[in-house]
Amino acid sequence: MLEGEWEPQVYLNQFLKNKSLEFENSLGEYELIQEYFSDIGSSYLKKNGISLSIGDDATLINTPENKDSVQSVDTALEGVHFFNWMEPKDIAYRSVAIALSDLAACGASPSWFMLSITLKDKSKDWLTSFRQGLIDVSDEFKIPLIGGDTTRGGLSITVHVGGIVDRGKFISRKGAKEGDLIFLSGSIGSATNDLTSLRKEKKGFKKNNSRYLRPKARISIGKEIIGIANSAIDISDGLIQDLQHICKESNLGANVYLKDIPFYDLKRAKIEYINSGDDYEICFTADPLQKKRINKISKDLNIPITVIGETVKGREVRVISEDGLELEIESGYKHF
Amino acid sequence: MLEGEWEPQVYLNQFLKNKSLEFENSLGEYELIQEYFSDIGSSYLKKNGISLSIGDDATLINTPENKDSVQSVDTALEGVHFFNWMEPKDIAYRSVAIALSDLAACGASPSWFMLSITLKDKSKDWLTSFRQGLIDVSDEFKIPLIGGDTTRGGLSITVHVGGIVDRGKFISRKGAKEGDLIFLSGSIGSATNDLTSLRKEKKGFKKNNSRYLRPKARISIGKEIIGIANSAIDISDGLIQDLQHICKESNLGANVYLKDIPFYDLKRAKIEYINSGDDYEICFTADPLQKKRINKISKDLNIPITVIGETVKGREVRVISEDGLELEIESGYKHF
Repeated sequence: MLEGEWEPQVYLNQFLKNKSLEFENSLGEYELIQEYFSDIGSSYLKKNGISLSIGDDATLINTPENKDSVQSVDTALEGVHFFNWMEPKDIAYRSVAIALSDLAACGASPSWFMLSITLKDKSKDWLTSFRQGLIDVSDEFKIPLIGGDTTRGGLSITVHVGGIVDRGKFISRKGAKEGDLIFLSGSIGSATNDLTSLRKEKKGFKKNNSRYLRPKARISIGKEIIGIANSAIDISDGLIQDLQHICKESNLGANVYLKDIPFYDLKRAKIEYINSGDDYEICFTADPLQKKRINKISKDLNIPITVIGETVKGREVRVISEDGLELEIESGYKHF
Repeated sequence: MLEGEWEPQVYLNQFLKNKSLEFENSLGEYELIQEYFSDIGSSYLKKNGISLSIGDDATLINTPENKDSVQSVDTALEGVHFFNWMEPKDIAYRSVAIALSDLAACGASPSWFMLSITLKDKSKDWLTSFRQGLIDVSDEFKIPLIGGDTTRGGLSITVHVGGIVDRGKFISRKGAKEGDLIFLSGSIGSATNDLTSLRKEKKGFKKNNSRYLRPKARISIGKEIIGIANSAIDISDGLIQDLQHICKESNLGANVYLKDIPFYDLKRAKIEYINSGDDYEICFTADPLQKKRINKISKDLNIPITVIGETVKGREVRVISEDGLELEIESGYKHF
């Protein structure tokens, strides 16, 4: 049975004697997993403490004794988080990268990922390309695919990622202190810019550095700001909206200065782009005394890190124009 | 924006002065999570080593030093794994229970679960009932909901579960030895039987013991057979099909005796029901010398555990009729 309702009669109605049982004739879930989702990053299993992976009921994971285990999950849907004109390898890469971005925001080093995929009617070419994207992200971050689930239906990809962080060093959204500076890695708007071009062409860029197709999970920054940042979040839904989560969880407000926000490919800041999503940059807060160390991290990693404002008493995130006025802006991406 | 393609212009086009930012006016993802997916099983957080949960980028999980962490993931889809005439609380319970069943098959004790849910147009009543099902399963197994993701689209539920097992004691599919007895908990066919009745009525049973709506994750059995079973699997797709996985992973064959298989509510075994899915019983293998201990476990837990065959050299699972002939049967549930 390929799809739809569970219908026992369809596949339980044969009763023939003197034959042995074989399940080798069709590409079932087992074979799909074996052929397209196995042996991805398996050379990284041991160093990440994974004992058993795809092909058993569950996966056994060992966390080193001086480390905490950190996990996160993200679902990517066709038409929302990716598009059918994208190459399958970019869909795969992007789905894993946006999940890894949450680990980056916590200061964690990724250890593994799991893939729950719902799909139907995909060709061998599609699956082969998709597998390549999984291999790309696996090799880039040195993490194995350690399990998952496959079901049949409209394309939906849920990626679960696990990582480790030195015990007690996890960077949360809750730790911002009044008077912290607010830092932002990279710039805002490059993914939006890419997506606009991509949507016109209805196909993937040839170039490999598309920030929409291949977002950078800022793992290296997350690791470096451990012990320096008081709070952090990754920018998935929009800078101000995501910063609002830090403020809410930390019982603080924030002033953000429009002129200081680095926008991609623009000579001056534009309020219209302030809540561009999909950039997956890291926004974090730290004591002003940490500024010199953060500048050094930026230089060492060759990734811009910019001060865009500061935390203040209150509950609101205010965006301040060059003439000192508060600006009102629409919210970032709404999932519902 | 409620659904469909990412469209920055829709929500980035306002630029008004002298107003502060507020996101309180609609039920966004953040509010949806706060209202319906927060504080589920939070009293079980501490004992399970969870430090941070819903509301941060990721979740921090500590595994005790003498334990291994075990994880699994399952996706449940409307029309395949559950139906729209089911009560939302049963959909929730069932989606988590079938994921927990994988932990049972490994001998693990569950510690937490994560929920990635794609949904749209659900009423407050629906969400409230769904939340109740999550609370039911959380309370039954004393596990907290520690994170997840919400997206908008056709109903799809991916549940990730984590548990612990004494270091090195994980029961895998790979460990069966030639000459092991094959044991089965409970009986086969009750979920199919329930589902047949349910599909006629197109509504949930009033009774709470429906094996389809509320499958029993056999955690108690899994824990007790640690150190006794050489291999185990949970029966989700069909007894013979799932036993085949044990045989394949262990490089063995098996003889299963039709007359010995306990079928639900039938006076005699029926080959038509042999690959009934959805029962979530545990099939495991153990040395014949362990039979007495297993009988005691069965008695102590008040759950039947029956010998249905033995492992043999070879690669095939043979089903043997009362007159000693081999039977051919169709495979169990095919996901693709």
